[in-house]
Amino acid sequence: MPDDRAQPQPTERTQTLRLAGPRALTLDSGQVLDEVTIAYNTYGELNAARSNAIFLCHALTGDQHAASVNPLTGRSGWWDLMVGPGKVFDTNRFFVISSNVIGGCMGTTGPKDIDPATGKPYGLTFPVITIRDMVRAQVLLVDHLGIAELLCVAGGSMGGMQVLEWMASFPERLVSAMPIATAAKHSAQNIAFHEVGRQAIMADPDWRGGHYLTDGVFPSKGLAVARMAAHITYLSEAALQRKFGRELQDRATVSYAFDADFQVESYLRHQGRSFVERFDANSYLYITRAMDYFDLAADHGGQLSQAFKWLKARVCVASFTSDWLFPTIEAKRIVHALNAAAANVSFVEFATDTGHDAFLLNIPEMFTTFRGFIDAVAAHRGVK
Amino acid sequence: MPDDRAQPQPTERTQTLRLAGPRALTLDSGQVLDEVTIAYNTYGELNAARSNAIFLCHALTGDQHAASVNPLTGRSGWWDLMVGPGKVFDTNRFFVISSNVIGGCMGTTGPKDIDPATGKPYGLTFPVITIRDMVRAQVLLVDHLGIAELLCVAGGSMGGMQVLEWMASFPERLVSAMPIATAAKHSAQNIAFHEVGRQAIMADPDWRGGHYLTDGVFPSKGLAVARMAAHITYLSEAALQRKFGRELQDRATVSYAFDADFQVESYLRHQGRSFVERFDANSYLYITRAMDYFDLAADHGGQLSQAFKWLKARVCVASFTSDWLFPTIEAKRIVHALNAAAANVSFVEFATDTGHDAFLLNIPEMFTTFRGFIDAVAAHRGVK
Repeated sequence: MPDDRAQPQPTERTQTLRLAGPRALTLDSGQVLDEVTIAYNTYGELNAARSNAIFLCHALTGDQHAASVNPLTGRSGWWDLMVGPGKVFDTNRFFVISSNVIGGCMGTTGPKDIDPATGKPYGLTFPVITIRDMVRAQVLLVDHLGIAELLCVAGGSMGGMQVLEWMASFPERLVSAMPIATAAKHSAQNIAFHEVGRQAIMADPDWRGGHYLTDGVFPSKGLAVARMAAHITYLSEAALQRKFGRELQDRATVSYAFDADFQVESYLRHQGRSFVERFDANSYLYITRAMDYFDLAADHGGQLSQAFKWLKARVCVASFTSDWLFPTIEAKRIVHALNAAAANVSFVEFATDTGHDAFLLNIPEMFTTFRGFIDAVAAHRGVK
Repeated sequence: MPDDRAQPQPTERTQTLRLAGPRALTLDSGQVLDEVTIAYNTYGELNAARSNAIFLCHALTGDQHAASVNPLTGRSGWWDLMVGPGKVFDTNRFFVISSNVIGGCMGTTGPKDIDPATGKPYGLTFPVITIRDMVRAQVLLVDHLGIAELLCVAGGSMGGMQVLEWMASFPERLVSAMPIATAAKHSAQNIAFHEVGRQAIMADPDWRGGHYLTDGVFPSKGLAVARMAAHITYLSEAALQRKFGRELQDRATVSYAFDADFQVESYLRHQGRSFVERFDANSYLYITRAMDYFDLAADHGGQLSQAFKWLKARVCVASFTSDWLFPTIEAKRIVHALNAAAANVSFVEFATDTGHDAFLLNIPEMFTTFRGFIDAVAAHRGVK
């Protein structure tokens, strides 16, 4: 993705919400967190009726900087193509909120933070969290902001899982929802790829059983391998072919050695290297685990439509033709269940060869569709 | 795959060929090996006319034990379903040869062997090898056995690459060829997956820059991660779903921990563990590199049909519908090039949900097709 986008950027407010007290957040595992910090950004202004709030849920390695420069990387926000003045999520009209998930590493409480009970970083003593736990924390934030009802909750990939969980667990809080490039459960293949990443991290002796922060080291090599494996799944075979093919990197012929001869190798190594500068290894374990555990039908008696039986919101489900991580068949399963629950649902599959990451890219047809949906929802709700 | 197959097994002869002397094997890199050992098995008897020899090329982690119990693992040969009395490659009729590739670790010279120049294991001083180098060694073996012409050369995956290389570089030695589940070049995505595996191995501190044997250690964790990542690509999403789905391993509910909760995790970990007991980490680096370098069209002026311009052999190209590592489109590219060279080619795509590993599995339609092909070739050549 291009780093410098000559587009108007919204003014963000970076804030943190601190919740303390017994059982500040009760988790699916039964464990509780007595102190929780939620790092979040807002863009635009909440209107007097408090009816123009949109919540954006980030993906596995995303954060609260949906539309503002990430201070760690200096890169644009992950959805800055979608969020800003005049964009799909128009910050001249809407009050846009994005928060770092529970278990994350960008300010919200996660395994790299200090456990108040011990004075040391949690590491693996941090409780295993679920997608629903992430959404519970988001609900606390929305409560704190005094917003009874969200005009929309939207997100792609793991963000889409959170959207589905909002729809199932907090349907009364939603006017509309946009689960994008996602699934109602993580597939065996996706669990397998995550497990490879976790094993790569845990195989790094600098992981130290999760206590690397206490020991003053970091499992950079293991985390980089995890990122490289995952990154392949975010792109399509066609995109890799178009971008790199078998082109060589800075050489005319192969080296007959183990240098990064091919551009695709060089690119992957770069992805690994840059990732370890911004992400916590234990957070990677916890968040991939939360995705693996996600199975919305199982949480509702084995029938996905039961998850949506209280839903009144309008829903726009979206998928991408070349996404093999969350293929269209998974989106259709969501749509079928919504139809079985007599929900108000539209479905669109965008034709693109860019793979899973398409939801983060410049796809004009996607912008047009999403703009139409959100404008209709806003008009229906009288939001100007 | 089932371990115990109640089928007649051929009698194998396990042998080694030692070639010594200046430039015993000259490699594509320009480097030479002055001492080369080739470990090979034969099944059946060479007929008086020396016209019934079939050469089988193994895949990335295969070996010379095509149809006999692997002494290291105690498991059946990788193609025992295809090779034996009365089977497709009928050892009552044919003389079947299979050798471990150059760079391998099952007896043929590779990086774990002693460099005669230093008296120490080669490690990373072993020259980088190519698919053509593997085939050159096979030609030396076939010469040694006094066989001018092979009735057939067959293999799947990297074995298929070797078959294609035989067709391009030694067309006068072949009566027929069967490249299966393969491609004339390694794709960007496939290079990417291999690079993840190599980085996982090299990230293991016990790899020691390739000198682990001298240091008396072994990069088991890194090699296991490499195997896990690769293993996902050998199966289809549908096969993983059918075999494991989201079934839990030895528990009724999730553990809220990082145990192998899911069967697919447990299976992958087992794949990693068992692989490191039988495979050399540096061999994995060298053989994946050879596959990445493979680009038959580039070796022939950029036009694949030029690779086959001297070919007289009958060719049977085969692919599998659910193989996403070497998809049917790659097989079709080979077929198109063979047609453009006016070669005698048939093509078959087998419908199966088992993914790339299908060529190793029990697929009756495949056996019927391959039997028809090899029987026709034998009849044409007067082999009874």
